[in-house]
Amino acid sequence: MKVKDIGEFALIERIAQIVEHADERVILTIGDDTAVVKPTKLDYTLLTTDLLVEDVHFVLRTISPWRLGYKSIAVNLSDVAAMGGFPDYAVISLAMSPETDISTIEDLYRGMAEVARKYDLRIVGGDVTKSDKMIINVAIVGEVEEENLRRRSDAQVEDVIMVTGEIGASASGLRIILNPKLKTRVKEASKLEKAHFLPEPRIREARILAKLGINAMEDISDGLASEIRHICEASMVGARINLSKIPIAKGVEKVAELAGERAIDIALSGGEDYELVFTAPKELQAEIEKAFADIGEKVTAIGEILDESQGITAVDWFGNVKPLKISGYTHF
Amino acid sequence: MKVKDIGEFALIERIAQIVEHADERVILTIGDDTAVVKPTKLDYTLLTTDLLVEDVHFVLRTISPWRLGYKSIAVNLSDVAAMGGFPDYAVISLAMSPETDISTIEDLYRGMAEVARKYDLRIVGGDVTKSDKMIINVAIVGEVEEENLRRRSDAQVEDVIMVTGEIGASASGLRIILNPKLKTRVKEASKLEKAHFLPEPRIREARILAKLGINAMEDISDGLASEIRHICEASMVGARINLSKIPIAKGVEKVAELAGERAIDIALSGGEDYELVFTAPKELQAEIEKAFADIGEKVTAIGEILDESQGITAVDWFGNVKPLKISGYTHF
Repeated sequence: MKVKDIGEFALIERIAQIVEHADERVILTIGDDTAVVKPTKLDYTLLTTDLLVEDVHFVLRTISPWRLGYKSIAVNLSDVAAMGGFPDYAVISLAMSPETDISTIEDLYRGMAEVARKYDLRIVGGDVTKSDKMIINVAIVGEVEEENLRRRSDAQVEDVIMVTGEIGASASGLRIILNPKLKTRVKEASKLEKAHFLPEPRIREARILAKLGINAMEDISDGLASEIRHICEASMVGARINLSKIPIAKGVEKVAELAGERAIDIALSGGEDYELVFTAPKELQAEIEKAFADIGEKVTAIGEILDESQGITAVDWFGNVKPLKISGYTHF
Repeated sequence: MKVKDIGEFALIERIAQIVEHADERVILTIGDDTAVVKPTKLDYTLLTTDLLVEDVHFVLRTISPWRLGYKSIAVNLSDVAAMGGFPDYAVISLAMSPETDISTIEDLYRGMAEVARKYDLRIVGGDVTKSDKMIINVAIVGEVEEENLRRRSDAQVEDVIMVTGEIGASASGLRIILNPKLKTRVKEASKLEKAHFLPEPRIREARILAKLGINAMEDISDGLASEIRHICEASMVGARINLSKIPIAKGVEKVAELAGERAIDIALSGGEDYELVFTAPKELQAEIEKAFADIGEKVTAIGEILDESQGITAVDWFGNVKPLKISGYTHF
């Protein structure tokens, strides 16, 4: 059965049933002119929006609708995490061809509903319309206490630069997805693919870091090098990264070899890791490492913040210092 | 100069300058992972999102970028008005071809900034990306007091049904835009076109109505008949509309004649009027009319709410009662 067979109102009805999330904070959900919810309670409200277009951001041939739904919400939650906050509400816009199978749309929203439940996000409204290509817009409302808000502009000279988790898995997963011949030759292939399809927003980790008193924070969407540059530019500081310290995910080396690339380049500019990169006073490093050990998560010091005049540099395996090569994703 | 010549970050910089709105409620605007704002203050937060796709919702050949920007925000503000509330914040997603002229994008955001300033809306963040067709998603956060919230489901049997302003102008304007030969033959052509391109959200009028104690309210986006059905279905009531009472805008009759249609059909199902249709206890009617006379705006009683068993009917000019023909816009 196709979307055109049931029409707009029946489609909205089905979506509403999938994303329903009974909650005392939700007064009116899908079905009126706007959603009506309880206001956020903390000092600040966080607002973010993200537009995904078929064949620009995703290819329906290579990602299941469920995973696409999951990922489209997860990457926005990652932005909320990067501010030190947590999510409350989402409104979703979807455009699709009238020829789309209803089951595709239902699976998409089931994936969204799954990640929403996991991270206590309420999907409270949206818009559906037609277009040749599928288009998804996710807008999220979150909140944060004034003292836990983390700007990218708050890095301080002498801060240690750290990252959560491992880097390069998502970009390596993408290479495997686009070139399935790699699949049998990389032992970690399914883990790398999962990193690409189902990123987990680091909300819990970001809250821990914010409460510990770190300075600047970003999530890694464009690429590690590009995010470090964002922090440096916004904070008017320089940075030096130790390439040998970057926690490259298992399997990235093998993918790089097979794809004729360098693992470090995939890690620096591959993007979509949705890990956190942050800066903290050096004296906090041990406490951060302990907190992460306690929850069984990885965190790694990869460099330090310097005076702006020092620029942004990388120390390679031989101790040579060169400008950090920055080639994160840009849309135009 | 084209978008691809300046790239994503320079484009965002230009947009930020256009929509900038210094305000004590805005803590962090465009440039970090999310926007950071002060929470809404009233009982309830309103959330709405709307996706507009080139060649589905607009044709760039027939609408200037400035007007497109203005309208894309205005129609969302109309949804906030229909709840009895007022707007606070917006985040905007835009996808465009890298070949788009920068001036097109700047004009689009200038139109958005104009309507935002007019209705005290702060544009605080967004997303830009590429696609073949232009895509605009507007997500708005508003607020309302519990006692002023107006649901579509609150119509009561014996309520009077009223509409603000005049109906059919926007749909008639669209007919002129799509068939410019009509232009010279309709005296009110430019006024009708303006109604289509630059709708004004009835925020002030909706606030007055909510405070006066009306029951259900909707803005007219899909078409008057369709909105009345929405109210009736949500409220589980019937309705009878007097077709002769519907305040049809000047010029609609002439456009209908030239286009081989009936003016009443354009008024009932043309849509995009962005006037308010609402129901109120009969004893409020005189007070509502006085309040609107005081501000120099039009309001008209067009029918009444009946028991659900009576269905939704229309009384024609000869006193005949027939089912109301409902053919509002549906997307599939």
